[in-house]
Amino acid sequence: MGSITGEIIKISLFGESHGEAIGMVIDNLPNGIKLDLAFIDKELNKRKPQGDISTSRKEKDQVEFLSGLYNGFTTGTPLAFIIKNENTNSSDYSPNIPRPSHADLVAQIKYNGYQDYRGGGHFSGRLTAGLVVLGAICKQILKDKGIYIASHIKQIHQVEDDEFSKDDIFSQINDLNEKYFAVINDTKATLMKEEIYLAKQRGDSVGGIIQTVIHGVKPGLGEPFFYSVESKLSSLLFSIGGIKGVSFGDGFGFANSYGSEVKDELYYEDEEIKYYANHNGGINGGISNGQDIIFQCVIKPTASIFIKQKSIDFVEKKNVDLKLQGRHDPCIVHRVRAVIDAVTAYAVLDLLMMNNARKLN
Amino acid sequence: MGSITGEIIKISLFGESHGEAIGMVIDNLPNGIKLDLAFIDKELNKRKPQGDISTSRKEKDQVEFLSGLYNGFTTGTPLAFIIKNENTNSSDYSPNIPRPSHADLVAQIKYNGYQDYRGGGHFSGRLTAGLVVLGAICKQILKDKGIYIASHIKQIHQVEDDEFSKDDIFSQINDLNEKYFAVINDTKATLMKEEIYLAKQRGDSVGGIIQTVIHGVKPGLGEPFFYSVESKLSSLLFSIGGIKGVSFGDGFGFANSYGSEVKDELYYEDEEIKYYANHNGGINGGISNGQDIIFQCVIKPTASIFIKQKSIDFVEKKNVDLKLQGRHDPCIVHRVRAVIDAVTAYAVLDLLMMNNARKLN
Amino acid sequence: MGSITGEIIKISLFGESHGEAIGMVIDNLPNGIKLDLAFIDKELNKRKPQGDISTSRKEKDQVEFLSGLYNGFTTGTPLAFIIKNENTNSSDYSPNIPRPSHADLVAQIKYNGYQDYRGGGHFSGRLTAGLVVLGAICKQILKDKGIYIASHIKQIHQVEDDEFSKDDIFSQINDLNEKYFAVINDTKATLMKEEIYLAKQRGDSVGGIIQTVIHGVKPGLGEPFFYSVESKLSSLLFSIGGIKGVSFGDGFGFANSYGSEVKDELYYEDEEIKYYANHNGGINGGISNGQDIIFQCVIKPTASIFIKQKSIDFVEKKNVDLKLQGRHDPCIVHRVRAVIDAVTAYAVLDLLMMNNARKLN
Amino acid sequence: MGSITGEIIKISLFGESHGEAIGMVIDNLPNGIKLDLAFIDKELNKRKPQGDISTSRKEKDQVEFLSGLYNGFTTGTPLAFIIKNENTNSSDYSPNIPRPSHADLVAQIKYNGYQDYRGGGHFSGRLTAGLVVLGAICKQILKDKGIYIASHIKQIHQVEDDEFSKDDIFSQINDLNEKYFAVINDTKATLMKEEIYLAKQRGDSVGGIIQTVIHGVKPGLGEPFFYSVESKLSSLLFSIGGIKGVSFGDGFGFANSYGSEVKDELYYEDEEIKYYANHNGGINGGISNGQDIIFQCVIKPTASIFIKQKSIDFVEKKNVDLKLQGRHDPCIVHRVRAVIDAVTAYAVLDLLMMNNARKLN
Repeated sequence: MGSITGEIIKISLFGESHGEAIGMVIDNLPNGIKLDLAFIDKELNKRKPQGDISTSRKEKDQVEFLSGLYNGFTTGTPLAFIIKNENTNSSDYSPNIPRPSHADLVAQIKYNGYQDYRGGGHFSGRLTAGLVVLGAICKQILKDKGIYIASHIKQIHQVEDDEFSKDDIFSQINDLNEKYFAVINDTKATLMKEEIYLAKQRGDSVGGIIQTVIHGVKPGLGEPFFYSVESKLSSLLFSIGGIKGVSFGDGFGFANSYGSEVKDELYYEDEEIKYYANHNGGINGGISNGQDIIFQCVIKPTASIFIKQKSIDFVEKKNVDLKLQGRHDPCIVHRVRAVIDAVTAYAVLDLLMMNNARKLN
Repeated sequence: MGSITGEIIKISLFGESHGEAIGMVIDNLPNGIKLDLAFIDKELNKRKPQGDISTSRKEKDQVEFLSGLYNGFTTGTPLAFIIKNENTNSSDYSPNIPRPSHADLVAQIKYNGYQDYRGGGHFSGRLTAGLVVLGAICKQILKDKGIYIASHIKQIHQVEDDEFSKDDIFSQINDLNEKYFAVINDTKATLMKEEIYLAKQRGDSVGGIIQTVIHGVKPGLGEPFFYSVESKLSSLLFSIGGIKGVSFGDGFGFANSYGSEVKDELYYEDEEIKYYANHNGGINGGISNGQDIIFQCVIKPTASIFIKQKSIDFVEKKNVDLKLQGRHDPCIVHRVRAVIDAVTAYAVLDLLMMNNARKLN
Repeated sequence: MGSITGEIIKISLFGESHGEAIGMVIDNLPNGIKLDLAFIDKELNKRKPQGDISTSRKEKDQVEFLSGLYNGFTTGTPLAFIIKNENTNSSDYSPNIPRPSHADLVAQIKYNGYQDYRGGGHFSGRLTAGLVVLGAICKQILKDKGIYIASHIKQIHQVEDDEFSKDDIFSQINDLNEKYFAVINDTKATLMKEEIYLAKQRGDSVGGIIQTVIHGVKPGLGEPFFYSVESKLSSLLFSIGGIKGVSFGDGFGFANSYGSEVKDELYYEDEEIKYYANHNGGINGGISNGQDIIFQCVIKPTASIFIKQKSIDFVEKKNVDLKLQGRHDPCIVHRVRAVIDAVTAYAVLDLLMMNNARKLN
Repeated sequence: MGSITGEIIKISLFGESHGEAIGMVIDNLPNGIKLDLAFIDKELNKRKPQGDISTSRKEKDQVEFLSGLYNGFTTGTPLAFIIKNENTNSSDYSPNIPRPSHADLVAQIKYNGYQDYRGGGHFSGRLTAGLVVLGAICKQILKDKGIYIASHIKQIHQVEDDEFSKDDIFSQINDLNEKYFAVINDTKATLMKEEIYLAKQRGDSVGGIIQTVIHGVKPGLGEPFFYSVESKLSSLLFSIGGIKGVSFGDGFGFANSYGSEVKDELYYEDEEIKYYANHNGGINGGISNGQDIIFQCVIKPTASIFIKQKSIDFVEKKNVDLKLQGRHDPCIVHRVRAVIDAVTAYAVLDLLMMNNARKLN
């Protein structure tokens, strides 16, 4: 009951990791958008495994549009696309022994054993490729509205990246969007990759934090009571496997702050309203205030480790030791970043259109 | 466009702080539920300001049912209720000078000045009283399904409460639900209240963290892809003013963990599937796994401080100093807890009914 | 699960005939609309029973706004209103003996006996008063967009009214909207009322047809595939009790027509696109084409007749003879017209806003 | 904004007549349904043009499942399928000269010329093949619940079929479902086909009426206020191109009836509640009453006639004469019947699941 979402632009996501294809239908895209197919591929590349810190499963991720695109422009009627699944190896997956911390067991229970378990099936990160295509389209539309999105890897294990700089945010955004391993300070990138590589050597995995900025949003986005900017974003972000926490602005740091320390005071400068600070991450009362929207997502270490784990065989109903085989990522933080950017773009575009929808033209 | 939400049980929330009334319509409640009106009042009391650490605005919070209740039982048709607003004092609010970190300015921009600004209008925490009534009804229904919810104040500024105890969780839940200032360790309550009182003395405010447990949920709740348990909960939680972060299980602690440290291994005990740990907060792949669902919300210090702040007058278009008058809370953490519990109950009930809805009976 | 509907402007309807109040929440109305309260009352009057051809139950239908209206203007946040129930006489209704052709029995089965049966409860035509208020607000907004709606009683039993005149439609609309018993040819009104009065004398009831015109809609309203103009209108129209058929343009007359007889050919006149005919009722492929939208609704004779009927007592599980008591309408066609106009206005406004919502502003 | 619909089972339809493929995503199908692929093909055949009374465009209508089906069973996660477009001939379509009574012109205006105009694009009847696949799946599920659906061609031009027989309905349903040209009385079929053939000879087209029965629905389906059985069915039926009227039970005949003539009185027979008549078409107050649900759809003559018509060239902005080329149906009534059956099955299944969804299991 949950694969369709959205208010003005509705999306319908489908597919399984080792099925025929994954894909999406996007309903109510504005007509007349000339899709930048090269940009879609560029965004997909950011999600792909690359180098020795990722899984060796390679997918071409060839996007095939089935409808809604004519002569290169969106038609205004549903845009449907698929990405065929390739390079699958289902023999690495055992149907009866759930991988701890994965969705294997809960899917088995929820769907009474009818789920496609291969490669995690519908619960696989594979489906997020569809989100990245969606995000690329949304980003392209937002850019024309002066809205830019970028993320950096704020933390991998104990290595922390530099902070966003308010004065330099625009060039930081551009830089980050050109990078595969998106950090502000490249020295930190080296240290982070070392952390990942070391974990990989041990058959282990490691987590981290992605921090995202949305630049150029005008005041007024977000709909009370239930579609606050935070609600809309978090709802989509928590659909991404591995994300276990989302915070805005000062986030969990608010807990040991006083109100006097985190006030975002106002002033006029050249008849324009400005803020002295941005503790609230660009959102007041759930509504964008015109400052940069800033938020953090924590991504847990991948559950697929090569260290022996205790599990069960639910057919034979006995305890077993499980040692995973196959191709897995020791860290997905840098790859999830592309998905975070994507759903962020979609959330912002839908919020923008929701805010417009109330107005009579 | 955002005051209606829900999948199987849909709700429609309305009202302003100083308007006639706030209220809600609840669509599709099961018929034949004998509402426990005393329990509704008990839950509302937990949200009310009490003692010297809260605002002195007092509301009777008298719930009037307008439809959907006949002879004390739910009819199955829409349940509507209102709570009239009383004890309002609009003179404390200035229409032209927005309070920093409040929704005043964004509402002014979003609604072109037509919003009811008095007391924060539709953005007021006043509306959460409606959520608490909803939550009380949902809790009552969940209890019959063996599902229990409780929260504790995990942190106020730098004072931290004790942890939930897995073995003792049921009695902890019962204890917490009887308390107004919900802490596990009452010594910590005293320290926390001191923190709040000290902040109040200085005209300041203070933030904190609420941690919540949902006990008794069977495996299988949550709908891929977009209605994960985390998505559903966070979407509703972030509708509550002041919440700026939501995390599940180990939350932001996952960032500097290794996969081997946070694995929730499985075993059989007496033919029942058990877990060695619960780092994932009872959720895998967005689906409940049968363990306790545990999550944290950070609540920022209230924006209404009595210390002079810089603001603007947007009618006269000039900078001004603002010193708030009126009745405000130095801390809302302990009051927000009742609202968190309420939307949690609603989220769980809707997820339960969503999971049932797929089945043919 | 069905009391909430709408895409951009969502509504939530509640209430029972003999409960405390009926009412509605309207979500996402544009802000800054100065509501014409006198017009709302005028529209409500058209739905009220009047004269000797209607029930003698009289309601004041006093609309109380609870939220979303400030200083006479819509705020942009949810508009909630209630109409208290008065002049109820529940003793005329027997809980155990369903009235044939009414919802009594199906409600009993659907809600397991928990429904409020008094006066038909949630199934009562009483709820349509809420729709009329909604419609009056929508009509006011549409008028500013140059869109006008009116209906006439096309038929009562065998008496037929004159036809809409394409050349004179604007003045016909104005005339009809000033009338309580809305016919184009007043001579026919006399004959129709005689039909109704005669039926009433016999304790019987009589049906009829309402024909509606929507004037001033630009081409392009209606959303493929599932929100055609016909889908949207019919879905709302069939929510009104007593309506058992809806047809557009030539309607059921299309069955024995040839394509060559019902073609709506095109031509340019002064660079404007015109049509030689309007067999399709202003809609092609589900989308408005700029011509007048014309449709018909058939309303069955009221089920509440004073002639003895065969029914059952489902408590005593036996056959009984039922002779209704109380106050009932011998014909509701002329009163339902106000409700048809109202949901039409709402449907058109929502379609207008849906069509706008796709565009980036 | 309109290609997604449904409450418990949501569907997302996409495609254009001459694009890559049409298809659908079905969300929230129960898991564990073994799909009868032969039955799906059988239903698709009923929609295909056959013989000399239909267009000569032939499509294989090969259904390819992309997700949600594993080992022949539904998984419970989104079921996606496509049907590739073949045998297209876009040269028969002129982009600048709209075909009267078609959606060509309104699509041009609505989408600013970006729509795929070829073969009617997204407005083509081609998309209804997707609905037929959906319907076949739903029918299969409903059959297990004892619910059966069938339609007959009640009228083509002035030739009328025999009536449904209450006593013999079950065998009539079975007979009709085996027929391509679905009439009760085969002598009438010959006369109807003659009507169609004669119209074809003249380059003309002809309309008709389909009457449908839903047998085996228990009392209680339909959700007040906005999801009455009539609302749900009509909303989907009016999505089908060519349908211009929908009526239930006695339909437009109610207009000249007295209440005493159309009452559906009740009685007990062997402790079971029975009805003396079924004027209301199995629905009271929008809720199924357990009798057969009976409704009528009028289908207009196809707009694609080979007789010269007046149209415009909107690029050259001048009046033109248009004489259609290509392959078109002189009558679609018999083919639309398969689509009516299909959306009926989907509507009933969704209503069934909505009614179940309110119950706590």
